[in-house]
This record gives sequence, structure tokens and C-alpha cells, in this order.
Amino acid sequence: MSTSLLAQTLKGSEIIKIGNEINELKRQGQKIANLTIGDFDANIYPIPAELKQGIIDAYNDNQTNYPPADGVATLRQEVSAFLEKSFGLDYPASDILIASGSRPLIYSTFLALIDKGDKVVYPVPSWNNNHYCHLLGAEEVQVVTKAEHNFMPTADDLRPHLKGATLLALCSPLNPTGTMFDKKDLEEICDLVIAENESRGAGEKPLYIMYDQIYSQLTFNKEHVNPVSLHPELKDYTIYIDGISKCLAATGVRVGWGFGPSKIIGQMRSIVGHMGAWAPKAEQVATAEYIKDEAPLNEYLGNFKNRIQSSLNTLYQGFQQLKSEGFNVDAIEPMGAIYLTVKVDYAGKTTPTGEVLNSSADINFYLIKEAKVALVPFSAFGTDDSSVWFRASVGTCTLEDIQEMIPRIRQALSNLK
Amino acid sequence: MSTSLLAQTLKGSEIIKIGNEINELKRQGQKIANLTIGDFDANIYPIPAELKQGIIDAYNDNQTNYPPADGVATLRQEVSAFLEKSFGLDYPASDILIASGSRPLIYSTFLALIDKGDKVVYPVPSWNNNHYCHLLGAEEVQVVTKAEHNFMPTADDLRPHLKGATLLALCSPLNPTGTMFDKKDLEEICDLVIAENESRGAGEKPLYIMYDQIYSQLTFNKEHVNPVSLHPELKDYTIYIDGISKCLAATGVRVGWGFGPSKIIGQMRSIVGHMGAWAPKAEQVATAEYIKDEAPLNEYLGNFKNRIQSSLNTLYQGFQQLKSEGFNVDAIEPMGAIYLTVKVDYAGKTTPTGEVLNSSADINFYLIKEAKVALVPFSAFGTDDSSVWFRASVGTCTLEDIQEMIPRIRQALSNLK
Repeated sequence: MSTSLLAQTLKGSEIIKIGNEINELKRQGQKIANLTIGDFDANIYPIPAELKQGIIDAYNDNQTNYPPADGVATLRQEVSAFLEKSFGLDYPASDILIASGSRPLIYSTFLALIDKGDKVVYPVPSWNNNHYCHLLGAEEVQVVTKAEHNFMPTADDLRPHLKGATLLALCSPLNPTGTMFDKKDLEEICDLVIAENESRGAGEKPLYIMYDQIYSQLTFNKEHVNPVSLHPELKDYTIYIDGISKCLAATGVRVGWGFGPSKIIGQMRSIVGHMGAWAPKAEQVATAEYIKDEAPLNEYLGNFKNRIQSSLNTLYQGFQQLKSEGFNVDAIEPMGAIYLTVKVDYAGKTTPTGEVLNSSADINFYLIKEAKVALVPFSAFGTDDSSVWFRASVGTCTLEDIQEMIPRIRQALSNLK
Repeated sequence: MSTSLLAQTLKGSEIIKIGNEINELKRQGQKIANLTIGDFDANIYPIPAELKQGIIDAYNDNQTNYPPADGVATLRQEVSAFLEKSFGLDYPASDILIASGSRPLIYSTFLALIDKGDKVVYPVPSWNNNHYCHLLGAEEVQVVTKAEHNFMPTADDLRPHLKGATLLALCSPLNPTGTMFDKKDLEEICDLVIAENESRGAGEKPLYIMYDQIYSQLTFNKEHVNPVSLHPELKDYTIYIDGISKCLAATGVRVGWGFGPSKIIGQMRSIVGHMGAWAPKAEQVATAEYIKDEAPLNEYLGNFKNRIQSSLNTLYQGFQQLKSEGFNVDAIEPMGAIYLTVKVDYAGKTTPTGEVLNSSADINFYLIKEAKVALVPFSAFGTDDSSVWFRASVGTCTLEDIQEMIPRIRQALSNLK
């Protein structure tokens, strides 16, 4: 009892445990294809050259003192224009909040909306909602999604759980699955939220949607949809999370933005200020310059998406090939983000050294050791440990790395009985 | 009741209200000497040239992906060496946590230690402790300090309040006063903390010190002291807050560090990770390079401190001159940081247009309008509104600006009756 209850009950990250295992094997001189981290190898996927030059220019222009609490004005203006161009969304610069990536915006959304015991509904698998619920002492309602719906939640999944809830946390393209909402499915979910809010009394807290679209620029053959474009009346109830971290391979540059109702964005601004989770100023100035011009941005995104999609498709086709050969594996066609959802259904099987693979964690550690491929089991994203589905993240591998992986997986799975 | 109770009860910043007033007058074409912000004009006080070049080099080296959760390893190693060189403090790299400035470290210290209702003791005037207590639902005990002790707390001030407390929040050089602990005074406070912890049972949470020394490299003729150097047995109970934001004029670069007991730093690492309040990677890499070399750092600090001290001394001597002329003003000799403590004791006086100055806020707005000088009343740092003491921050003014200020203050005060 030497620290706070919150600190003592912080849950360790399963991904970090896997990372430790990988690092241990690397220390032993082994080469592991690491598909665990939602990040990029910056030498394979550098940030746009013009953005890099813009940051250098901003430093040379002495942009080194405090940014305004809500972000550099030009960046908020350019984000406003970008939202109009990209999604037809109409948010003035004053309803946009800049922070050091998307996480401070997610956490401040929770802090602005959730009192202890408030109900937060989110699908599983999904990323980190469990941690934010724990930090706020929220009552968390995990809605388990189905492989046949690409692990995206449906109105039928969510309907029984929204009564009295304060927050519905949605994400598309979804981390960890790389799948996306269909327009019709998101529309039906929006209808539920509108109906729920219409049923509430004047003094009751409404049901809000947190819509994490940090991967919205990284979509392949499918259009990104969002609540307010589909249902403008949801504007008072939707907080969006977005930024450059993923779509510009800029996870270490620390520039994210959120937007939503003025009052809530104002409260989040105060919270982000107390957290001090501000994006560095030179990077803010440069991001404003960079997203202003459509041509270089579209060229970068086109090339970047092609390469990511090639990696994802190669891995997808590799798993389909293994499936056609009779292996108990599967994969869901990639739609967006940097993730592929794969199934490795080998629970209960026995390794050549006589160990039984009891869980997805066991299967994963077997693949790390024998196939030199590290995935993340969906159990790290809130599902039951009996799930045999995994996230494969391709941002730190070359296409060649991925091509070389499938034969190793084939061999390792062949050795199981 | 549309958002969380926390969000609804966030206190607005008095400094921001003053900022709005200044901006309004600037829009009207007036030139105001702005001594309100704890920041720098980056064209007057740029960051070190070698640090800037290091950031540019790091960007050119594609240092753009996620930094490790606790910070880039080389930076934590160099901070460890820097603590040894600067203070003789022995902290391994693993007990050091990097974040986007010092605020995330302060907030995560509170989150790691404070349960709702826990007692937090801090002196007033001081910076933002009230906000962190509010965010955590702590029982806050504000200990009012005295001008005759340079507004630093003494053991006598604190003694009645430490029984059962969880956190004592100290800062030296102190924001807002620019004054510092004497060795003897801090030693006596340390003795109290040690005695209080010795009096507690095995199951009781100890009393911790949060020691904010973000201005520790910006001292003039006085040596910076710290708890663990004075009393090594406080190592298990002291969390330090530090970084480059102030000592390298790098508030917008967003690199801070905290250090303390391994277990607590580990918990803070998880919290900072969920907050996403990470320092940008290129800036971390460059800061590690920069603080490694003593010569350029010492040269920069020497020059920087000379210029800041000249500004502070000029303002200090100006106020002493006004005092000697019979004005009801005073100032405390500057010791460190970028602040001067000044007294403008004109409460109850009447302006030429017949308005009575009822509070320090009234005096301040009068000085803004008539002397074109903006200060921050200590009431913004937790003291009673009847206090007629103010913080003057010199980082955004040239020496010339400051020299021109005193005649305007003289004239404005002469007009009061």
C-alpha cells in the first residue's frame, strides 16, 4: 500500500511481455520478424521528405517556445480545412485540439466525460479501452465481436448494452484487426445512439461516441465512414481522434488532433494543458504547412498505402495458401491500417518437445521460437484467451521479410501434433 | 451535467484571463510589456545552436518512430551521468523517465501516489499544485509562506501539517518567486519528513516529497540544494521533476525527465504511456547528445544566465529605486529561474477616472492599461486576493524593454490617489 490504488492495479501490457521475449531471443543472436508493434521502421517507412524539411525549417525559424494551449493556430486552421476536404466535415479551428499524439486526446476524452462508475461500451478486440476504463474507474462493458463480421461491432451486438451508457468507444479502421465499418453497419449503430439519447431526460448525461479514426487515411479499397457525415445530428455527441502518427508514419513526431463539440473540446484543452501533453511546436508548424498542399500529401499517401497494402496482401495470401494446403489457419482480407487479422487454430496441439499449446499466448511463443515470427494474440486486446486470432502488424518489415515468413510458419505448424 | 464532474469543476487559469486582456489591448494597437508568461521569446532566447543542429541531424537520421515507453536509452543514460555531475546524485538510467516536458511527470507523480482524499501539502504561492490536487480529488493543505522568508516554506511553516500527509510538493528555484531554499531550511524540512515517516506503521503509506527542480540550472549566486543530496535516506521517498524546458529555453521542444524510486518510476512509466505524453524521438536523441558535452552546455548556460540575471536585476533595481523615492513598492532579490517577486501595495487607491483598486487583479489591470506592463498577481498561484505581491517573468522581454518599463510604472503609480 505504498502508492495509489490506481498505480498498484495498473495492468501490465501483454505486448510488452512479448517484446521482452523477442528481445531475449535477439540477444541470443536470433533474427525474429517482429509483427507485434503498431509502429514503423523509419528506414523502411520514413516520414514525408517535405514534412521533415518543414520541421527543420521551423527549428531554423526558432519555433522553440510554448505552443498555444490548444495548438498552433495555423495547424488548427489547416486541420479544419483538411477535415472539410477529406470528409466534408465542418469544424472551425476553435473546435480542434492539438496534442502529443492521439493517446492524450483519448485519455482526455475519458476524463472529460466519465465519472467513476459510468458505463463505457466498447467492442473487443480493441486497443487500450480497458486501460482507460481502469484509469477512470468506469464500468466497462466489453462487447465481443465476431469473425464473420470482420470483428467490427454491429448494431445487434451493441443494442443490449447502450441503455444508460455514457460512452461508446469505436475505431475504424480498427486496431487490431485492420478491418473497417461498412456504411450501413455504422449507420445502424448511429441510429441506436440517436434513439438512446432521445429516450433520456433533460438532466441526464447523454451517450457520446468516441470515434478513433487515426487510420482513416490508410484505407485500401474501401471508403472510410464516420458518424457525423452519416448523421449530422450526432455532432453534439461525437468526439473524434485523429492525427499524423500513423498516416504519415510519424509515431515519434507526436502530433495528434481531436475535434468535437466546443464545450467538450474546451474542457479537454484544460485537461491536456494540465497533463502537458502538448505536441512540440516546430512539428506543429511543419504539419500545418504539410497538410495544406494536396499534391505531395496524396503522392506520399498513394505510395505509402501501396507498400503497406502489398505487405498485408502478401501475408494474407500466404495464410490463404496455407489454409488451402490444409493448415488450420485463416486471415481476413485487409481493408485499412497496418494490420492483418490471422487465425492460427492450434490450441491443444503438442510441440516436438512435448509441450501442449494451451492458449493463444502459447501458440504465439511457439511461433516466435520456431517460425521466428511474432504476432500479438487478440487476448492482448481484451478477448478471451481461448481465441486463436492474432494481429499481424507490417510496419516494421519489408515485403521481402514477409515473403520469407510463410515457409517458416508452414514448417513450424507442420511440426505440431 | 453533460460532462464529468471533474471537467465541469476545472478552474479557469487567471493567467489566461490576463493574457486575454493583453491580447485585446494589442488588437487595439498598444504595445504591452508582457511579464506574465513563464516562457521565452525564442528570438531573444533561442535554444542552443548545437541542440538545434542535433534535432535536425536526428530528423535526417529518420529518428521518427516511437521512442521506448520510458524514453530513448541514450538520453536516460546521459541524464544519469548529468545528475551525477550536477548534483552528485546516483540514479541509474532505469530509474529515469522521459516525458513531454515536466507537467506529465508532475501529473503522473500525483496519479502514482495519491488516492482520493489523500492529504497533499504545498506552499503558496506555488505553481499549479491546486490543479493537480483537484484532478486527483486530494485534500489540499496550502501553507502560506512569508515575504520575510522569500516566500519559501520553512520547517516551522510545514510542521503542523505533515501528520498523515501523502505528498509534500516542493519547488526550488520556486515558480513564481524566483527565490530558493537555503541549505539549512531544506535540511530542517527533510528532518521533518524523515521523522514523520519513522512515526508511521508498516502498513501506512509514507510521506513523499515531489521536488520540482526544473529551474535548477538557472541559479545566480546561490547553490541549488536538493533533498537526497542532503539526506540520502530520503531516496526512497523523493520524486524529482526536471528537464530542458527552462534551462535551455526549450519550452516548445517538450523534453522533461523525472527520477526517483524504481517502483514508483515504473508505475509512472505506465501512466505516462497511457497518457501518450512522450517526448518526440528526434528531440530525445538530440538532447542526449547535447547534455553529454560539458563545454558547450556550460557556455550556453553561462551566457543565458547572465542575460536573464541582468534583466531580473535591472527590474529589481528599478523597483528599489521607486521604493527609495517613496512609492509603496518592493522586490525580493532574484536568486534563480526567470522570475522576480515584486510588491505593488496600492490596494484601496483611486485611479484618475475614479475607480477604486480593490484587489491585486485590479492593480494588475491598472498597470496593464496605464503602464503597459503586465504582471501576474500571486492570487493566480494560490494566495489570498488581498496579497499585493506579483510575479514578473522576464523571458519574453529584452533588457531594453525592461529598462523602459520603470518610468512608465512610476508615472502610472503617481496618478493614483
